[in-house]
Amino acid sequence: MSDIFIGIDLGGTNIKIGCFDSKIKLIHKTEVTAEIDMGPEVVVDKMAKTVKKLLADAGFSLNAVPMIGVGTPGPAKYDEGIIIATANLKKFKNVPMKQMLGEKLGKDSVFENDANTACWGEFVVGAGKDVNDMVFYTLGTGIGGGIICNGELVRGFDRNAAELGHLIIELDGRLCGCGQRGCVEAYASASSTAARAAEAVEAGAESSLKKVLDENGQITCKDVYDHLGTGDELAKKITDETAKSLAIICINMLHTTEPQRIVFAGGMIAAGEPLLNRIRDYFQEHVWTLKPEPLDICFATLGEDAGIFGAAALALHACE
Amino acid sequence: MSDIFIGIDLGGTNIKIGCFDSKIKLIHKTEVTAEIDMGPEVVVDKMAKTVKKLLADAGFSLNAVPMIGVGTPGPAKYDEGIIIATANLKKFKNVPMKQMLGEKLGKDSVFENDANTACWGEFVVGAGKDVNDMVFYTLGTGIGGGIICNGELVRGFDRNAAELGHLIIELDGRLCGCGQRGCVEAYASASSTAARAAEAVEAGAESSLKKVLDENGQITCKDVYDHLGTGDELAKKITDETAKSLAIICINMLHTTEPQRIVFAGGMIAAGEPLLNRIRDYFQEHVWTLKPEPLDICFATLGEDAGIFGAAALALHACE
Repeated sequence: MSDIFIGIDLGGTNIKIGCFDSKIKLIHKTEVTAEIDMGPEVVVDKMAKTVKKLLADAGFSLNAVPMIGVGTPGPAKYDEGIIIATANLKKFKNVPMKQMLGEKLGKDSVFENDANTACWGEFVVGAGKDVNDMVFYTLGTGIGGGIICNGELVRGFDRNAAELGHLIIELDGRLCGCGQRGCVEAYASASSTAARAAEAVEAGAESSLKKVLDENGQITCKDVYDHLGTGDELAKKITDETAKSLAIICINMLHTTEPQRIVFAGGMIAAGEPLLNRIRDYFQEHVWTLKPEPLDICFATLGEDAGIFGAAALALHACE
Repeated sequence: MSDIFIGIDLGGTNIKIGCFDSKIKLIHKTEVTAEIDMGPEVVVDKMAKTVKKLLADAGFSLNAVPMIGVGTPGPAKYDEGIIIATANLKKFKNVPMKQMLGEKLGKDSVFENDANTACWGEFVVGAGKDVNDMVFYTLGTGIGGGIICNGELVRGFDRNAAELGHLIIELDGRLCGCGQRGCVEAYASASSTAARAAEAVEAGAESSLKKVLDENGQITCKDVYDHLGTGDELAKKITDETAKSLAIICINMLHTTEPQRIVFAGGMIAAGEPLLNRIRDYFQEHVWTLKPEPLDICFATLGEDAGIFGAAALALHACE
């Protein structure tokens, strides 16, 4: 009987779970609401029951599973599988999730930051599967990241490496939710892109987005990209600023860990080629002239499933 | 007979060579002018003869040497020991130095970027010897760097990682010699610190540095720190800006590879505690508030010898 690996992606809204073969080929997956407000005991119980049901539905027994991988929001003590605290998982304070899951399923598990987990998924079977050095950005409400050097995740001294949304690209720049000024997240996340558009409209910029703001009371990042598609000049300017900020962090990562490829993931990549091409253009326009830099900048390929792929692949990696 | 390791630090002006025991304890060292203008053949010949003389003076034979380590300016094909081109070593274009040195000494050698070599020296026997994750900056005319993750140098996809002077900290900021705008090197290197002081004086800032500029036709970085010591307000402002720029890259590296310690080296650390304390203050003032960050920021301890220590330690590491 060949081994089956379980990948769990614990989010603030849903829990995604997949079972995979030992080549990290997806066999079966499911998604349930996390019911985070019910507290850790209920969440872990639901997680365990869903794993059992998923395996049963796919025709496997728990005995086939040597290891479970779990991606969670941080900060956490990942080695011990203890969630310290997170903005998205309220009521989760110093929760020994690895131990709780072990008691319910009788299985060992490995825990990793959710952005690192998605990064590992893209690295093993997605957009980075043919490279050895990669940087990963997930562009959502915030910006998360992951770094692969020489085929391994960079975890850092205290397991909090690759908080790549919080690289400062502007001295005394825009205030970020983290308390720093000038973080790339304060310019190029979905919420910051939307906020910059709303600020510009409120300051009197002419734009078809004004009607959106008037009617909906807000502008979303999707609105910006929709209006980019219809040729709105402000939407173009806002998108350009987002793309430029992302190009600058590509340059910064080139000069730091020198990846062969930088992979962008997350909701914002729905903006598609117009955004990607602007990032590539700004990268070439702003990178140094000392030597050519053919850095490969692309979009992720696993979509929402990157987390379960990565979690299962980390479980496999822990057994190797 | 125990092994002896040779460390060579090839600079634009001098060649430093040391011989070390297998615990990287310095036994004997020497320094000769590089005579770079005479071309690679002469330089390598001098290097080989100096290695032989150093060993003879210390009472060892070449037979005791299993491996030689060489730190050189980049860019280079380090694995092959080929210097491609460098600003400081004119007439060195595609020079197969590893092969040339091998022919003259009958020994294998390992090549590494000079900043990485110094970083490795500090990591193995200097300011980073008790940590596993470290970032190293050398503050001279330019700014170089090195990164240690999990006890190993981060070399990057094409062996050009850790060009840490060229992280962009200001969108569309000061022009750097590399062609980029807003690099930390354009603010905080010795030459940029001096340039900012001269620009301020020329723009009419009141300062005791005006007399220096009038008399010498220039202001050096040392002048700035000398006048800081005598309480000049402009020197304080310029130093603060340098310290702030360096604090920002400490924050950026914290959020990238998350080192336990950041070590500053190079001529500028002669400015001493007043500079170091300002960097530490700005770091705490500007870093995020999500959790405490007790990152250790300190000065290097090996001084000018870091390169030969690191080169010998890399030779040892290659034999392990």
